[in-house]
Amino acid sequence: MPKFSDRIQNLPASPIRKLVPFADAAKARGTHVYHLNIGQPDIETPPRFFEAITEADVKVLAYSHSAGIESLRDGIADYYTRLGHPISANDVLVTTGASEALNFVLTAVLNPGDEIIVPEPFYANYISFSMGNDGVVVPVTSTIEDDFALPDIEALEAKITPRTRAILICNPGNPTGVLYPKEALEKLQAICKKHDLFLIADEVYREFAYGGHTHHSTLGLVGLEENVIVIDSISKRFSACGARIGCIVSRNQEFMGLVLKMAQARLSPPTLGQLGAAAIYDMPPSYYEGVVAEYTKRRDILTAALGEIEGVVCPQVNGAFYAMVRLPVANADDFCQWMLEEFEHEGATVMMAPGSGFYATPGQGQNEVRIAYVLQQDELAAAMRCLKAGLEAYAKTH
Amino acid sequence: MPKFSDRIQNLPASPIRKLVPFADAAKARGTHVYHLNIGQPDIETPPRFFEAITEADVKVLAYSHSAGIESLRDGIADYYTRLGHPISANDVLVTTGASEALNFVLTAVLNPGDEIIVPEPFYANYISFSMGNDGVVVPVTSTIEDDFALPDIEALEAKITPRTRAILICNPGNPTGVLYPKEALEKLQAICKKHDLFLIADEVYREFAYGGHTHHSTLGLVGLEENVIVIDSISKRFSACGARIGCIVSRNQEFMGLVLKMAQARLSPPTLGQLGAAAIYDMPPSYYEGVVAEYTKRRDILTAALGEIEGVVCPQVNGAFYAMVRLPVANADDFCQWMLEEFEHEGATVMMAPGSGFYATPGQGQNEVRIAYVLQQDELAAAMRCLKAGLEAYAKTH
Repeated sequence: MPKFSDRIQNLPASPIRKLVPFADAAKARGTHVYHLNIGQPDIETPPRFFEAITEADVKVLAYSHSAGIESLRDGIADYYTRLGHPISANDVLVTTGASEALNFVLTAVLNPGDEIIVPEPFYANYISFSMGNDGVVVPVTSTIEDDFALPDIEALEAKITPRTRAILICNPGNPTGVLYPKEALEKLQAICKKHDLFLIADEVYREFAYGGHTHHSTLGLVGLEENVIVIDSISKRFSACGARIGCIVSRNQEFMGLVLKMAQARLSPPTLGQLGAAAIYDMPPSYYEGVVAEYTKRRDILTAALGEIEGVVCPQVNGAFYAMVRLPVANADDFCQWMLEEFEHEGATVMMAPGSGFYATPGQGQNEVRIAYVLQQDELAAAMRCLKAGLEAYAKTH
Repeated sequence: MPKFSDRIQNLPASPIRKLVPFADAAKARGTHVYHLNIGQPDIETPPRFFEAITEADVKVLAYSHSAGIESLRDGIADYYTRLGHPISANDVLVTTGASEALNFVLTAVLNPGDEIIVPEPFYANYISFSMGNDGVVVPVTSTIEDDFALPDIEALEAKITPRTRAILICNPGNPTGVLYPKEALEKLQAICKKHDLFLIADEVYREFAYGGHTHHSTLGLVGLEENVIVIDSISKRFSACGARIGCIVSRNQEFMGLVLKMAQARLSPPTLGQLGAAAIYDMPPSYYEGVVAEYTKRRDILTAALGEIEGVVCPQVNGAFYAMVRLPVANADDFCQWMLEEFEHEGATVMMAPGSGFYATPGQGQNEVRIAYVLQQDELAAAMRCLKAGLEAYAKTH
């Protein structure tokens, strides 16, 4: 058999999906599985999304412009402008989800062997896309004791080498729920300016900020316009993960021109998803307020329930809809698999994403799990009771 | 400003799209532009595609399985089985168009600096995706005199080095319209077996075979099951380019497992397009017969009209809906731009894709253009009259 590339052979399995066969087996046994492993919101997609597709009454489902349909690019530019970051449609390139955006950006900035600094724990697929482009993720560790705040900027700066091309952040943070204060962004601004690095910011959870905390976009970093690249998506904002509509936003026009060449090679993003997205980008503030109110309640249920389980450490969670939680177990991979393979409580069990897959440093996150609080409040409460019972049962046998 | 990767800086502009600004300017002047530059069919997408999406009545537009929804993978497997190539859903991975399929495959087989042999002229984006993966396209030239038949297998074998990982073919051929006979495939089979290379076959135009000629799939090459990777798409087959639904087909299960890791990193293909595609993959033979009859007429109009223009060489075209045509001009890039910038005939002009962009060998294709015959018969005939008048006017001034 012919050989495969090194990059593909070394690609790690997704921590979010590697336990799927065990979950499937549990379901086959008749056990209900609470899915806290994946950030698939259960909120309804705005009906306007589907109405716009129907109204378009498409006869020939053609390619769109490679950078996205005009009305969507305009709508996205208007959205950012309303947020206080005036940009034009030329600063926006529509992608097939944030995934493609991330892949395009890394292809554009990494030569083989180049390095990208990422605070860990991080969204696991940052590793996949970096490795897919033969780049090297250089982690700088944030800690649960510090609520996963941005690591000391000196520790971060110490990681910079001549091969460093960019710093990549996720804010609000997946998997941590961290929300970086303005001061953290300004520190990143200074260091990216000093070393002339790209600052790549995954801001797909922008609106998911709780408890009166405010999200600060990298687009607001004055003087860093040529370095800032924002990755965005409608998946979480409008609960439209399956639309596969994201975008790259940057005021660096040379960069946008280069990315357009990649976009042209893949022809176009999905046309139907674009038609729907273009119709909902002008959602009023009340829409976001409703969603945020719901997730705030879920966060509160989660953190209160976790606070009552002995030995569990749940950090402060101010954004996104994840928490990186420390469990009183030696090996969370084993515990998560055990929950699916051997445990049930009131006919159900809980699926979580083991924490180690969100770190690049070997040994980190062994006793952590990522919990996505994407279930209805009563279901989430039941899932927490199930987790509590599971931890008690596991402690007795391990 | 931070530096970009070499790969992105070296990426060529798409020959299909680089003249778009000139076409836009022509339209702004009120000139009608016949688009023969891009393979965007004007045939209606089967209405069943849209009906299935409406019937699904989706409330939460969620991610699908990373390998595609089950009904679509089953439908694709059944389609191949009906074609005489029995495969299972495990041999199918749904992608975001053939573009993503191609990118996944090249990521999986090419280390930086590895080589892939491709008969030229070829689909221009093969270069983009190879370069995006730091691979090297090694062309082996086919000629218009030989109707762009597969080059001598000895010439092809002479290109094999220790860095060669795969041979990539497009059959039926874009941009050439060539349809490889069974003997050509058997030659490729022997050479791929001998040197243990992947044989990657882009077969998205499978049904577009004219004049009683038959398409032979690489899936029929007995004994080469571990080496054959097929790239496919609904874009042309069902005139649904904007759905962005393609697939990778291979019986090499280790390969499919590795590709699934990449597919998981990007989460899922577009859900709506999959719902539509799943509903039309069982189209009866009469559907294809109707489409092929229409394209056969268009091909005949094109080749007859080109045959009447002095100095034009149109090779035998048996498949797809393109022809790579030699024009009596020294520089087709200049001519194509001139047609958009300075010429009109009866209020219209013609946009074509200059041929040089479909070759990797410098200097090849300078007097060739790719013509996509994707217009209604009367429009196509008018476009050919316009081209004839353009060539006459160009000859007088150049």
